[in-house]
Amino acid sequence: MPEVSMDLNMVRVTNGDFLGKAEACAPKLIRTAVHPQRIVEIRKTEAVHPEVVWRDRIENLSKYHLKKGDKLCLDFGDHQVGYVTLKFASVGSPQDAPAFFKVKFGEIAKEMTEDSADYDGWISRGWIQEEYFHIDVLPAELKLTRRYAFRYLEIEVIDTSLKWALVLEDAAAECVSSVRMDDVQPVESEGEVIRRLDRVGLRTLHNCMQDVFEDGPKRDRRLWLGDLRLQALANYATFKNYDLVKRCLYLFAGQTRDDGQVSACLFTEPEIIVDDTFLLDYSMFFGAVLLDYYDASGDLDTLKDLSACAYRQMEIADAQFDENDLLKAGEGFWAFIDWTDGLDKQAAMQGVYIYCAKRVQKIAEILGETAKAEVLKAKWKARAKAALDALYDEEKGLFVSGPERQINYASQVWLVLAGAVDKKKGGEILERVLVLNPEKGMVSPYMNHHYVEALLLCGRKDDAMDYMKYYWGGMLSHGADTFWELYNPEDPSESPYGSSIVNSYCHAWSCTPTWLIRTYFV
Amino acid sequence: MPEVSMDLNMVRVTNGDFLGKAEACAPKLIRTAVHPQRIVEIRKTEAVHPEVVWRDRIENLSKYHLKKGDKLCLDFGDHQVGYVTLKFASVGSPQDAPAFFKVKFGEIAKEMTEDSADYDGWISRGWIQEEYFHIDVLPAELKLTRRYAFRYLEIEVIDTSLKWALVLEDAAAECVSSVRMDDVQPVESEGEVIRRLDRVGLRTLHNCMQDVFEDGPKRDRRLWLGDLRLQALANYATFKNYDLVKRCLYLFAGQTRDDGQVSACLFTEPEIIVDDTFLLDYSMFFGAVLLDYYDASGDLDTLKDLSACAYRQMEIADAQFDENDLLKAGEGFWAFIDWTDGLDKQAAMQGVYIYCAKRVQKIAEILGETAKAEVLKAKWKARAKAALDALYDEEKGLFVSGPERQINYASQVWLVLAGAVDKKKGGEILERVLVLNPEKGMVSPYMNHHYVEALLLCGRKDDAMDYMKYYWGGMLSHGADTFWELYNPEDPSESPYGSSIVNSYCHAWSCTPTWLIRTYFV
Repeated sequence: MPEVSMDLNMVRVTNGDFLGKAEACAPKLIRTAVHPQRIVEIRKTEAVHPEVVWRDRIENLSKYHLKKGDKLCLDFGDHQVGYVTLKFASVGSPQDAPAFFKVKFGEIAKEMTEDSADYDGWISRGWIQEEYFHIDVLPAELKLTRRYAFRYLEIEVIDTSLKWALVLEDAAAECVSSVRMDDVQPVESEGEVIRRLDRVGLRTLHNCMQDVFEDGPKRDRRLWLGDLRLQALANYATFKNYDLVKRCLYLFAGQTRDDGQVSACLFTEPEIIVDDTFLLDYSMFFGAVLLDYYDASGDLDTLKDLSACAYRQMEIADAQFDENDLLKAGEGFWAFIDWTDGLDKQAAMQGVYIYCAKRVQKIAEILGETAKAEVLKAKWKARAKAALDALYDEEKGLFVSGPERQINYASQVWLVLAGAVDKKKGGEILERVLVLNPEKGMVSPYMNHHYVEALLLCGRKDDAMDYMKYYWGGMLSHGADTFWELYNPEDPSESPYGSSIVNSYCHAWSCTPTWLIRTYFV
Repeated sequence: MPEVSMDLNMVRVTNGDFLGKAEACAPKLIRTAVHPQRIVEIRKTEAVHPEVVWRDRIENLSKYHLKKGDKLCLDFGDHQVGYVTLKFASVGSPQDAPAFFKVKFGEIAKEMTEDSADYDGWISRGWIQEEYFHIDVLPAELKLTRRYAFRYLEIEVIDTSLKWALVLEDAAAECVSSVRMDDVQPVESEGEVIRRLDRVGLRTLHNCMQDVFEDGPKRDRRLWLGDLRLQALANYATFKNYDLVKRCLYLFAGQTRDDGQVSACLFTEPEIIVDDTFLLDYSMFFGAVLLDYYDASGDLDTLKDLSACAYRQMEIADAQFDENDLLKAGEGFWAFIDWTDGLDKQAAMQGVYIYCAKRVQKIAEILGETAKAEVLKAKWKARAKAALDALYDEEKGLFVSGPERQINYASQVWLVLAGAVDKKKGGEILERVLVLNPEKGMVSPYMNHHYVEALLLCGRKDDAMDYMKYYWGGMLSHGADTFWELYNPEDPSESPYGSSIVNSYCHAWSCTPTWLIRTYFV
């Protein structure tokens, strides 16, 4: 089911000073030449994920004389984000017709076996990474102008002519990121899975760190506030690129709706424009990201500059509370929390409010704005009490959400992370919800991350590590080079978009194992 | 059935001096800005050719907000050859996905109603003029790098997203030719059809006159010797661009097979290379084109330079004759004559030999090479006699061809054009073949042209004009802006390639009405 927001009457307010500061922090992208490692064949199997089989050495590339219908799949050895150049020639008689071929990119092998013609989902099929080219005169160097996210690149020759064949003489990528993998030491651990979780999380983060923190370099290459929060945390433990976080904070504060609410996401090309999607959890997280940034960087100027924006988000959230200090559900796509169909988000959002209000209170304290801090403190305290009074089901020992008193993971996790209960009680709640395994489970790695973070907050390190191995380790077992936007261990082909061909397989909100391992385990 | 030649062992011999002279005659293309005239809708009907219906004024272009599946068809008012630039923008929410669309070009309306997915012919589907584009950031100006031949341009939006629509703000073409339409006065005639035959022939020639005389600017954009002969003749009566003919003659002579035979066609990009297709009629025509060029231009230096090449083609043809001075059929795709399936080409080729030998004899005479001229004269005389003795069926009053004594149009036409019979007898033969209407008819406008030329040679001007009105006028009745590669008045959808979607609808060998009218009728 599509979850989109549109508000064509939205009025945007721009702060030129803030946008100037964002621009000053724009990274100079680091460009790295990457070459394919081998020629492979990707074969469908009974399993969800296909087999990748060695076909030939890359040195033999130009020995393949490609005619109508022929395919050639190159493996670039790891997940890459960049610009591809292909060198083509012809063999046989002179080229008496245009070369016509398709180039398809896949972040994972599964995409290469999926046919875009079958796609019928609600997200734009424009995201499927395939292009059609005609080349009138060979030999030719084809510089693809778009950026792709990929490990695999397949050429499929649609036609040459009866008289000649196409040869791919060389393929190369110029890969981009605002950071370098080499600048971060791998974690030292005896557990191979732990080292891989770290490495793959790090690669995920690296490939999403571009001109801004993108959610995913395949899709939708955009700065989202909720994703930024996790990326920034992982970045402080690894690449420590503070300027990129600062840039993103200033971008969000640099253009808001006329009521001051920060958008859930924004675009930087052709020029900055914030989207007309507003998710209350994401807006509130602005303050949390700001405080995390200050804690990591010590940059008091930015904290001062942007504190008003953080305060404003909490005021906007106030309007959502009823007289009993309970947050009311909004209309339509009002909050994110998770992709779970039919998820009642009310209790989880009560948790997100408390979580953020505590952090914004701290900002006020740091800046000496005592009255502001006191107001925030009073509010989250009342709302934490309201959560316990009205949302905690004593009999079940779990939080319930909304008019149907839905029991779901998200409510437990966010009210634990909010500190609505102490660590002992929180641990018990998390244990109980696992045993109950409610129908409204966790879909996104984003939600799964918060579950693990809640376990760690409650001191349950072993459970947290076991879960990371189960969940992110599951992606590893399917061959992930970067962590995915979506993963359901019980249904690895699940997608909220109607088809997994548009899924993003390098998604920043999934990068957190590198942060969790480095913060809690080494 | 595919008719292609391949000879990968062919040895090419290059004459750098000749290629230098060809290069010195390269035209500077004239570039003209052309804009679409109106927005149209092309509707299939019961007839072979669809209806083109006015949809909107071009000024309203940007009022169309294009979503998934929407199409917009622009009419550029006439057949164009050039480079297209499209300006796109988005409306609605910010562009949250790449714009993905198809651009399709059609020389005639029928192409726009044909689905390339249905194409299953033997010629490369790479010739179908459609492209797929993704645009990541709007607004954007899209400069299509390839050259297209078209009157109609259709945008089909494959996807945007649920939140925005694509707008085509402007479309323009930079059209190219080595000559200007304005430099030639239209023929003065009271007959509207005659004026249109001239105009459409002229436009056809204009759009094929590029860096060389192309056979067709859609397909296959290449210099063919047989086509060149007719283009050059039409050019002398109209644009009078002698250098372009000179260039093409030097290109053919500038690279040949090691036995000196000129190729049927050649490529100029990325550098000159002659094809491995050899058609004996086309090779022999080298001399005819050379003499026509000299007659039109008076350029004796070129005649001297290239006479040896013209002589050589006739020597190569000698090897094809048997002891009775009859030309033997070759193997495979050895001669062109026409596309007619199962056509026996022996008698027609005997005619082509005589036709060309007479002209090459004249070259020798002009250059004072008397002995050479005498030899050629003796040969064509003997071969003309052999044609009458062995190929003329007295009872039927028609020429027969090959071991099966096939009666076809081509034999009559070429032996008449060769002067194997006098004008009176020639006229009777042409009358008889029309009455008999043999199964092996005429398929290409190229063959039909020679039929009309034969009528004119025999003084049958009214028949010639009636036939032009029937044949080329038939294309006009289907809305032709330029004359087509192929046209069968009895089966207007016929194609030798398995589907008419790859047909060329601006084809130089069909341009001849402008020449015939200007030479014989005004």
